[in-house]
Amino acid sequence: MTNKREFPLAQVYGLLEPGPVVLVTTARAGRANIMPMSWHTMMEFVPPLVGCVISNQNYTFDVLRATGECVINVPTVELAKKVVACGNASGRHMDKFKTLEFTPVSGSVVKAPLVAECYACLECKVVDRELVAKYNFFILEVVKAWIDPRQKRPRTIHHQGEGVFVIPGRTIRLPSPKTSLFTT
Amino acid sequence: MTNKREFPLAQVYGLLEPGPVVLVTTARAGRANIMPMSWHTMMEFVPPLVGCVISNQNYTFDVLRATGECVINVPTVELAKKVVACGNASGRHMDKFKTLEFTPVSGSVVKAPLVAECYACLECKVVDRELVAKYNFFILEVVKAWIDPRQKRPRTIHHQGEGVFVIPGRTIRLPSPKTSLFTT
Repeated sequence: MTNKREFPLAQVYGLLEPGPVVLVTTARAGRANIMPMSWHTMMEFVPPLVGCVISNQNYTFDVLRATGECVINVPTVELAKKVVACGNASGRHMDKFKTLEFTPVSGSVVKAPLVAECYACLECKVVDRELVAKYNFFILEVVKAWIDPRQKRPRTIHHQGEGVFVIPGRTIRLPSPKTSLFTT
Repeated sequence: MTNKREFPLAQVYGLLEPGPVVLVTTARAGRANIMPMSWHTMMEFVPPLVGCVISNQNYTFDVLRATGECVINVPTVELAKKVVACGNASGRHMDKFKTLEFTPVSGSVVKAPLVAECYACLECKVVDRELVAKYNFFILEVVKAWIDPRQKRPRTIHHQGEGVFVIPGRTIRLPSPKTSLFTT
């Protein structure tokens, strides 16, 4: 991971809580794949737990269920076109790393590759499958996190549906005595 | 709902998929409350299902578990300070509608009030409690949706943690043959 440094697990929630589109990578038998995803939520701070819906129509569903491992990669606006292209083809028929020119990098814990071009990469293991059959809902634990320290203000992409994305504009700071908004 | 019009349930996902902070309202025995929330995800398009984590330390957790009903309200940046204030007090001790000057409006299906000042209001019923005990995770069905048609470009707020919020800037359109990014 030449362009990434390790990121504290306790701060991972701040990467996903704003709701960015992410790229989920998986691998089985040496074959890696990438899928965009936007239906995810934090479920716990430490260890960081992430709940996400991955349709059982998707190739990624099969691989994630079989291997129990993936990486959640956070792309920025520079990658938006490739993210959409990624969602319009299937890993059953295409090597998307090669065709779409994403660079796979080995993680330190899971076999699924990290995407070098992404701002952040979260190595994950499936820790709860109770709602997989009914809702295609997986609960993942983030076991190792990486970010690109050179990107000081990464502009993530947020999907409003039907190919419309919003990009973060200004930031506001409203001091609060609490880390979380989950209150009262 | 004088300032709102009904919004198609099939389009609800586009309101929550970008990851905004929302205000959850509940009511029990004529007493209403409001709580900011940022850990939520869409789980199904139609009927719209929303999964969310609400800490069992919160007053809202008790009321939601008892009544099985709430409203998810989507505030815009003009309300940001009040949203944070809302998270720094407890409905156990304060009438937050009155103190923070939010206007409650009756919904058409659930007893919890809609917040008149918010851009969108989603009346919800709890439909699955399987993961409540373990993760404080509720699955809600949106049974009626409302938006304020006067707000053409609502600027939602997205929480990065510790009182830092990002506001949407520009929008990009990347034509896709598919409604959803959930692919492959």
